[in-house]
Amino acid sequence: MTDFGARLAEIVGAGHVRAGADVSADYAHDESLGAEPVLPAFVVTPSSAAEVAEVLKAASAAGVPVTARGSGSGLSGAAVPRADGILVSFERMNRVLEIDTENHVAVVQSGVTLQELEERTAEAGLVYPVYPGELSASLGGNVATNAGGMRAVKYGVTRHHVLGLEAVLATGEVLRTGGKFVKASTGYDLTQLIIGSEGTLALVTEAILKLQPRTAHQATILAPFADLDSVVRAVPKVVGSGLGPLILEYIDAMTMGAITYTADLQLGIPDQVRDTAQAYLVVMLENRDTDRLDADVEAAGELLASLGAVDAYVLPGGSARKLIEAREKAFYTAKGAGADDVIDTVLPRAALPAFMARVTAIAQANETFVVGCGHAGDGNVHLAVFQKDPEKRATVLHGLFEAGMALGGAISGEHGIGHAKKKYFLDLEDPAKIELMRRIKSAFDPAGVLNPGVLFD
Amino acid sequence: MTDFGARLAEIVGAGHVRAGADVSADYAHDESLGAEPVLPAFVVTPSSAAEVAEVLKAASAAGVPVTARGSGSGLSGAAVPRADGILVSFERMNRVLEIDTENHVAVVQSGVTLQELEERTAEAGLVYPVYPGELSASLGGNVATNAGGMRAVKYGVTRHHVLGLEAVLATGEVLRTGGKFVKASTGYDLTQLIIGSEGTLALVTEAILKLQPRTAHQATILAPFADLDSVVRAVPKVVGSGLGPLILEYIDAMTMGAITYTADLQLGIPDQVRDTAQAYLVVMLENRDTDRLDADVEAAGELLASLGAVDAYVLPGGSARKLIEAREKAFYTAKGAGADDVIDTVLPRAALPAFMARVTAIAQANETFVVGCGHAGDGNVHLAVFQKDPEKRATVLHGLFEAGMALGGAISGEHGIGHAKKKYFLDLEDPAKIELMRRIKSAFDPAGVLNPGVLFD
Repeated sequence: MTDFGARLAEIVGAGHVRAGADVSADYAHDESLGAEPVLPAFVVTPSSAAEVAEVLKAASAAGVPVTARGSGSGLSGAAVPRADGILVSFERMNRVLEIDTENHVAVVQSGVTLQELEERTAEAGLVYPVYPGELSASLGGNVATNAGGMRAVKYGVTRHHVLGLEAVLATGEVLRTGGKFVKASTGYDLTQLIIGSEGTLALVTEAILKLQPRTAHQATILAPFADLDSVVRAVPKVVGSGLGPLILEYIDAMTMGAITYTADLQLGIPDQVRDTAQAYLVVMLENRDTDRLDADVEAAGELLASLGAVDAYVLPGGSARKLIEAREKAFYTAKGAGADDVIDTVLPRAALPAFMARVTAIAQANETFVVGCGHAGDGNVHLAVFQKDPEKRATVLHGLFEAGMALGGAISGEHGIGHAKKKYFLDLEDPAKIELMRRIKSAFDPAGVLNPGVLFD
Repeated sequence: MTDFGARLAEIVGAGHVRAGADVSADYAHDESLGAEPVLPAFVVTPSSAAEVAEVLKAASAAGVPVTARGSGSGLSGAAVPRADGILVSFERMNRVLEIDTENHVAVVQSGVTLQELEERTAEAGLVYPVYPGELSASLGGNVATNAGGMRAVKYGVTRHHVLGLEAVLATGEVLRTGGKFVKASTGYDLTQLIIGSEGTLALVTEAILKLQPRTAHQATILAPFADLDSVVRAVPKVVGSGLGPLILEYIDAMTMGAITYTADLQLGIPDQVRDTAQAYLVVMLENRDTDRLDADVEAAGELLASLGAVDAYVLPGGSARKLIEAREKAFYTAKGAGADDVIDTVLPRAALPAFMARVTAIAQANETFVVGCGHAGDGNVHLAVFQKDPEKRATVLHGLFEAGMALGGAISGEHGIGHAKKKYFLDLEDPAKIELMRRIKSAFDPAGVLNPGVLFD
């Protein structure tokens, strides 16, 4: 172990630094399809913000790159370290510090998983309503990418539920931003700036999360449509109805086939309907009162029929849960089916029909197979791209992002830019914004040690 | 007119630059009690982002300070210009550019008032649910201070409803941030960073605002309590009930007396109840269905009784509206009654009882009269401070802010820091955060021309 390794061992204890052949291959990658795995020079597993601060001071002084890692379930490659760098893994900083039932707040260390938070909040009758699909994901990772998920149409995304952070600057200063309150006008909002910065501005060690009273009753409606266009045109009407759907997802027929097959899931849809359905809308409603929920389900069914649904099935609880789980795992299904990349462009939701038409045209022009599903309620389209040729694939991705941006969208709704989408980001985004972001990066991290190569070259 | 004035006239047209004796005294101040009025060297009223960009380029080149002004209804002094500077007034950039009923979005110029937006969204069956009290306020000003208001307990504050901005940097670059979508993970969130920056980072020329379907029915319950402590202890229970109040305000007896007297408002509360009530809770509920609303009102009444309310009165529509309006004008009532300052500390809502005890102690120790009301649901306490002696007043304010921060709060929930609270901000806030904010400021505005003296010395 080098001198630098010895310094790290002094900080976190020798048992919590690994180097060279002791570094497991797991630390070389996240779940991104578009980022090359890289083994770091060191993996450290600190137990406190003070240790993180000392690691960052040492790294800044020595000019050694630092990459943060939660559970490694990210989809942008932002947790892929540098070969000459340190990977700071938050696996030991995994405590729920507080469930505050008076203020409706959870305080968690960044290594806490969504699964753990779900269990702990449920005990208190509360809920952290952001549900990015992967329950093994860490809250620190969620903060780094501003994770979203299916319930964003009702509750918003990570950004809307993080009230404050403990974060360590590259210079070793430990900051506390925000607090157990939903509003402030007291200087720049450092909390919001750090959220979504993919480990390039600061390392997050704690988060103060806003919770909601848990709503007791839910119902899920599955509505097959004869064509994708009708589905995406129905979306603004469902949102505008005032029914306040918790989930509003579209799933194309190909993806529905794949995910139900993989999950061995029977939805009880007549063969004839299934064979002609080109796409599905999944609508989940919630209410604290069953009578109100039943009335809302009936209203939603009528609305969907009026919007062109072939039928509307209220799924039994077990099937509903399985369908949502299968949808959450759609990424893995696509990966298993040999998808070469998965993207998550976000658009104004009313631009979905125009975008889907562009997707079809781009796919056909490049002899590429593109299927998908998406958070229709908030215009976030997840597309699996099947194209082995890297150059052709890059052309398709560039075309898809460009089309999304031309319709008023952005490259990623919730996965992030990381390494995987960086070249498109730098190519397509306004250069004045990129330059401003670089200056902000320098304001936080003058030595440039935090996740170099992510977002910027 | 100087050479610089001539240059401004070239940019915006001679009719849209005023200097010297032509500058109205209105431009010297906002509504803050704690910031000294200052007449600017120039007032310019641009008509486009391109003109704003040219003004900022000229100002940066000449090192002339620039202050933005919406309607001048701010409470921090952030719209008070410099004597040697330019005041950019957005009075001519006052168009609602679009009400997009498919995406539930409004696109407005920064000079649009809340009143105008309310009327335009109502026509479309939509609503911009952030209701800072003053309807003459501009959206640009709301963005600059992250304005809040009474409905934040349900809908959040300005920050949660601004999806994107058009903003002009000091260097003259016009940026478009965000878009008509609620989620993105595509680089740093410049939208959120500019919100609440009080004109020190960029001048906002347009905002993309998230709208909601307008909820048809509302009901207002007024609950008198024998003491303030019971009121603030009831707050977390009402929030936790799942009833989802639209408004949850506390008003102390003194403030209730003053605002109802000023508004000539009869609430129909028996004399005997009124004479013993030390504080009130105002709970507004909304629903798209009247039966559901009635059931919720009944449940809320029972809940309030169980939490120690002396009674719970469902106010007739006219009285309810007048009470809310009177509450919105509480600041002006306090000002009219001779208040020497008004502050809006924010706290974890469960810390309200402890904070109110500290307020009483600090007021008594300094022979100062402090009364108030507040957005109890989100821990935002508005206090009117009556103390003529500036030194004693500063001691009281310092003590109140320090007490709030010690309980996990922040100096301002929605008014901002501006000039008026700057000395307390710089004194009480973590120096590492202040330094980081200064570096962010330099990243945006290297010449330091945007609102110098606001937030920082």
